[in-house]
This record gives sequence, structure tokens and C-alpha cells, in this order.
Amino acid sequence: MAGDDLTGGHQQELRRGTVVLACLIRLRTPDYGYALLESLNALGIIVDANTLYPLLRRLEKQGLLTSEWNTAEARPRKFYRTSADGERLAAVLAADWQLIDRALTRLTEGDER
Amino acid sequence: MAGDDLTGGHQQELRRGTVVLACLIRLRTPDYGYALLESLNALGIIVDANTLYPLLRRLEKQGLLTSEWNTAEARPRKFYRTSADGERLAAVLAADWQLIDRALTRLTEGDER
Repeated sequence: MAGDDLTGGHQQELRRGTVVLACLIRLRTPDYGYALLESLNALGIIVDANTLYPLLRRLEKQGLLTSEWNTAEARPRKFYRTSADGERLAAVLAADWQLIDRALTRLTEGDER
Repeated sequence: MAGDDLTGGHQQELRRGTVVLACLIRLRTPDYGYALLESLNALGIIVDANTLYPLLRRLEKQGLLTSEWNTAEARPRKFYRTSADGERLAAVLAADWQLIDRALTRLTEGDER
């Protein structure tokens, strides 16, 4: 019997790859980690801080995001923004997503048989 | 600069979770590994045998697929079929997929800002 852990594991796997795409699209408008987290969660893209913050650092290291400290407010915050390479990757992933979405739709409708 | 390996890694991550959903939907009609592989690839869901075959064994172990040997033809083949638990998981993942798809569409259209 498929338990909650099993279901959750598969859900997590489905979501994992989409968080990168969501970040790259969302950070066309620069923002700091917590604000990004809240806006993704509000949209239904569930991700927690322990996953998102290391991911942001990884994407920056990969050159897909750039960052800048905003010190205008009382509390300095690191703002991330999608780089040109990040834009290119976002385009590739969005195209893949569309392709997979069409494939799943066709599978569900059963017209591949 | 985002190289091909980097792009490929992110593409793989995006696809990984969707292969499970595709298998669960496709195997409502029982089939053997190689035929499944070919039909997924024909639909644009790119997965290789070294990934798919262990995945099928894992899904069977998790009770999401059942299997049966078909010995009617010259070469016996193991046919997999989505179980009742597999159907339940497919419904959960398909709902998640829809939710993420809507979120990505809204993000792309920029109406979350």
C-alpha cells in the first residue's frame, strides 16, 4: 500500500526540477530569498527555506543568477536576479516543460495507443 | 557561462519526476519495458533503458505497479501494469502537475507581482 511517505517522496521528485524553472522566471524581477519563498508558496509551488536557500546559492555559483546586497533598508538583504545564462536555461526548461505537458496530456487521453 | 552539461543536468532534473507519472498513466494498458520505453520516447518523454528498467522494478517494489510474465510468445516478457495504489499516486501527481503548470504560467505572464 502506498503510504504517505511514498506519495510525498514522489511528489517531491516531481516538484524538484520545477523549482529551478520557477526561480529563474520569478527572479527576472530581483528579490531576496524570503520574498521569493513567499511568492512561490503563494502560487502553490511548495518549497521550504532549507531547500530554496542552498538552491539559490547553487544557481548563483552556476552563473544562472547574479546577486547584489541591498543596504538601503535597516536590514541588508541579498537580492538575486536571473542572469543572461539563466534566461537561456529558463527558455530551454520552459520548452521541455511544454513538451512533457503535451506528452502527459496525450497519454492521459490515451491517443498514443 | 552555462555549459551543455549544466543545462543537461537541469533538464534531467525537470524530467525525472515526470517519468514516474508518465509510466503510471501509460501502464494502465499493460506492457513490457522496451515497448514502454519506445512509446514514451515517441511522445517526447526522453528516458533511457538504464533509467527506466530500475525505475520499473522500484515502482513494482513500492506496490505501484504489478507484473506478470507473458509466455505466449517465443520470448517471455515481463508485463507491467499500474496497480490501484499506482492509480491513486497518478491522480495525486497529475493534480500536482496541473497546479505547478498553472503557477508557471502565471509566473511567466508576470501577474504575481
